[in-house]
Amino acid sequence: MDKLKLGLMHPGAMGSSIAAALSSKYQTGWLSEGRSNETRRRANEAGLKEFVTLDAFLDQTDILFSICPPSEAVKLAQECIGAGFKGTYVDANAVSPATANEIAQLCHRAGISYVDGGIIGPPARQAGTTRLYLSGEKAQEIAQLFLGSVVEATTLDGGISSASSLKMAYAAWTKGSSALLLNVRALAKSLGVEEALLSEWALSLPDLTARSESAALSTAAKAWRFAGEMNEIAATFADSGLPAGFHKGAEEVYQRMGQFKDAKEISTNDVLKALLEPEIKGS
Amino acid sequence: MDKLKLGLMHPGAMGSSIAAALSSKYQTGWLSEGRSNETRRRANEAGLKEFVTLDAFLDQTDILFSICPPSEAVKLAQECIGAGFKGTYVDANAVSPATANEIAQLCHRAGISYVDGGIIGPPARQAGTTRLYLSGEKAQEIAQLFLGSVVEATTLDGGISSASSLKMAYAAWTKGSSALLLNVRALAKSLGVEEALLSEWALSLPDLTARSESAALSTAAKAWRFAGEMNEIAATFADSGLPAGFHKGAEEVYQRMGQFKDAKEISTNDVLKALLEPEIKGS
Repeated sequence: MDKLKLGLMHPGAMGSSIAAALSSKYQTGWLSEGRSNETRRRANEAGLKEFVTLDAFLDQTDILFSICPPSEAVKLAQECIGAGFKGTYVDANAVSPATANEIAQLCHRAGISYVDGGIIGPPARQAGTTRLYLSGEKAQEIAQLFLGSVVEATTLDGGISSASSLKMAYAAWTKGSSALLLNVRALAKSLGVEEALLSEWALSLPDLTARSESAALSTAAKAWRFAGEMNEIAATFADSGLPAGFHKGAEEVYQRMGQFKDAKEISTNDVLKALLEPEIKGS
Repeated sequence: MDKLKLGLMHPGAMGSSIAAALSSKYQTGWLSEGRSNETRRRANEAGLKEFVTLDAFLDQTDILFSICPPSEAVKLAQECIGAGFKGTYVDANAVSPATANEIAQLCHRAGISYVDGGIIGPPARQAGTTRLYLSGEKAQEIAQLFLGSVVEATTLDGGISSASSLKMAYAAWTKGSSALLLNVRALAKSLGVEEALLSEWALSLPDLTARSESAALSTAAKAWRFAGEMNEIAATFADSGLPAGFHKGAEEVYQRMGQFKDAKEISTNDVLKALLEPEIKGS
């Protein structure tokens, strides 16, 4: 068999959708060791070939995609490189340019190619929703794999970590502003002026109440991994000499929401309570 | 002559518009000592009677409105109370509930009435744009003065500082999100991905580029006084046990923009440069 054009260690919702975009044209695979039935279901739906040992998986993988919680990105690279991976390493995680450069250095020292990636949009189920930004020497080669798929792959000029830079700046607004809005509603609740605030919003910022509710419901179950992303973003601002406080605040907001990991049927009020009572409700 | 229903120490753009809303029905006045020609022009347009000494002004004032930069609010109250003011003191500044309570205590110890206020909206030139929220024992009495004027005065239940609480929560989003958005654009510029970010925004968040430009142009000239307001808001979050980092970051953003005080013809790029080079461009 041909080597895997895309090997993915742990297919989550996003990763499996990126892999599925290639699996009809190329060999793609995953590593099942220690993974849940839910991950197996996703891997099967995405059409990925199963490998049961890390050695066999890495040996057969030409291009390895790392798509994992940001706080795990360096560890995953160390694990794969330490186990002797010899192909091209694509880190498509929401990490700071500094973290991307650290992984690039690990690859460089091991004599393997590094490509930096940043994914913007929801898991790729249909064309036009999800973009994979790529930077670095072999970015164009990776982008071409996705031609004609539901994933729009775009290469970026600039430094090797441009894709991570763009992802940080983009998520700094989307996830940062959602955390800010939830923090504001929690403040109003704490001060006994939540109804007054919603009335004022209805007059002067009429979309904001719905937006705050959507922020609560759409982030709660994923907040546990957003906290690490906010930490990467705060570091990115600090490295550029810009105020990092917004995303230190956002990290704390998402940490307090960590208790909702994979939860269903969460209400806005549950989220506000979790923000206000971290010592009681928090993990 | 009747005593002043509204005395205003230093008529700025907002204060003079609030005073003008009453000047056709009631005696209103200002203190000209040490003020600029620009302030005199505003006071005359608002129809306010001039007083030249603090003693005469306070002696003739029944209801004193404090509308000033947030960092001056306590000092102004101390000055008026120290000089023997004996009427009702209305603090309508963007201050934390703790600061409002501090001013309430100063009034209480001096044996005078305190009303807490919070203004939401632009300077009141026409009906329907600007709301004056009021809380405390005599809030209803103050609200009635504005019946039929361009200022919509609304009383709030809850504690004596509810009006300040509402103002903090409201401005935490409006001014906090503007600062966040400017910080994000400055980050993208610093990392060399500004064009890529604007292209991605055009695809997925099409109003955001215009919004970031509007945030730059509408806040730059006023940023010098927003910094103090962000400081009050950060303290309000901390007092409620909520993350204060967002508004510590916002305070820093507006401090770096302080150089644009009263400036005209500012570009978005000027603002981004000021954020990125505070040590060169900052005051």
